[in-house]
Amino acid sequence: MQPARRPGGRTARVRTAVHEAVLELLREEEWDDVSIAQVAERSGVHQATIYRRWGTLSGLIDDVVYERLSQGSPVPDTGTLRGDIEAYALQVAEDVSGPLAALLMRAGMVGSRGPEGETFLINRGVQLQAMLDRAAARGEQPPTLLELMEVIIAPLYYHAIFFNRPAGPDHARSLVDRLLSLRGSSG
Amino acid sequence: MQPARRPGGRTARVRTAVHEAVLELLREEEWDDVSIAQVAERSGVHQATIYRRWGTLSGLIDDVVYERLSQGSPVPDTGTLRGDIEAYALQVAEDVSGPLAALLMRAGMVGSRGPEGETFLINRGVQLQAMLDRAAARGEQPPTLLELMEVIIAPLYYHAIFFNRPAGPDHARSLVDRLLSLRGSSG
Repeated sequence: MQPARRPGGRTARVRTAVHEAVLELLREEEWDDVSIAQVAERSGVHQATIYRRWGTLSGLIDDVVYERLSQGSPVPDTGTLRGDIEAYALQVAEDVSGPLAALLMRAGMVGSRGPEGETFLINRGVQLQAMLDRAAARGEQPPTLLELMEVIIAPLYYHAIFFNRPAGPDHARSLVDRLLSLRGSSG
Repeated sequence: MQPARRPGGRTARVRTAVHEAVLELLREEEWDDVSIAQVAERSGVHQATIYRRWGTLSGLIDDVVYERLSQGSPVPDTGTLRGDIEAYALQVAEDVSGPLAALLMRAGMVGSRGPEGETFLINRGVQLQAMLDRAAARGEQPPTLLELMEVIIAPLYYHAIFFNRPAGPDHARSLVDRLLSLRGSSG
């Protein structure tokens, strides 16, 4: 199977074909059953090329995850604290409900993640802090970044990982209410 | 290396030796770098015996995790809601701070866990609900099981998995305060 032609030259085409193969395989199998040999077969890209470019399956999976998160999940800027937090919560609930859930977990796990993972998490933390700082500058009383992580993000990941049903949009909104009510009582 | 002699016969000794080898290896390496061949070498138990008994490395790891959790982490019964929740939170914070953290994650992950995992999680849910029911019977206003999971357990797992520092005891207590203050305002 030939990778489809895309703008951006051979390197970009190889990356796209390999990423798509990884995502396809992940819809069919558990992530720990996926191998570089399967990715090579599915993508039409030689194993040697994959090893040269990504080093290991972990490195490849991280690249897929961070690419998807960076492109698909920008930090919101709606003009209100509730709007931003709700948009972010809904985004995360969606991110963790698909085949990416297990990957996000793997990619984020201490000890598993490589330098791209560290960089992504640091950048994401900075962007979220900026979102909260914008609310403070408008005179709103934002939660801390830690509260945002603990009250919204941690439960969404927990549901996706430990239960068969990831939290849907209504559930995500109830977490937003909980976070804002904490601030209402202490802020 | 011979497994140490323990009470309980050969089957129990084999299980103990294999479990200890798994835990040792996990202190030295990432869990996805551990193999049954290494477990066999470290424990002095033949690979064929390990395969016959546990089937796969996943099955073996699950057995180690649930054994440790069942023995080491009974659900508390201190006589007060705060006492029970605090004891449980401190226990979980400790469970997820050692080499078991990644295993807990793997063992609990949807799609990764086997029937022992399902059974353990269901039993644990029933025990925790009983702990909350005892508080209600005493006239206290307990949170729901979902609130307990989301406000206490999810953040403790999240910290252990995504940050290099698992939440310590003080942090665990602050989550207990958060949970009980939710109930204070709504209960």
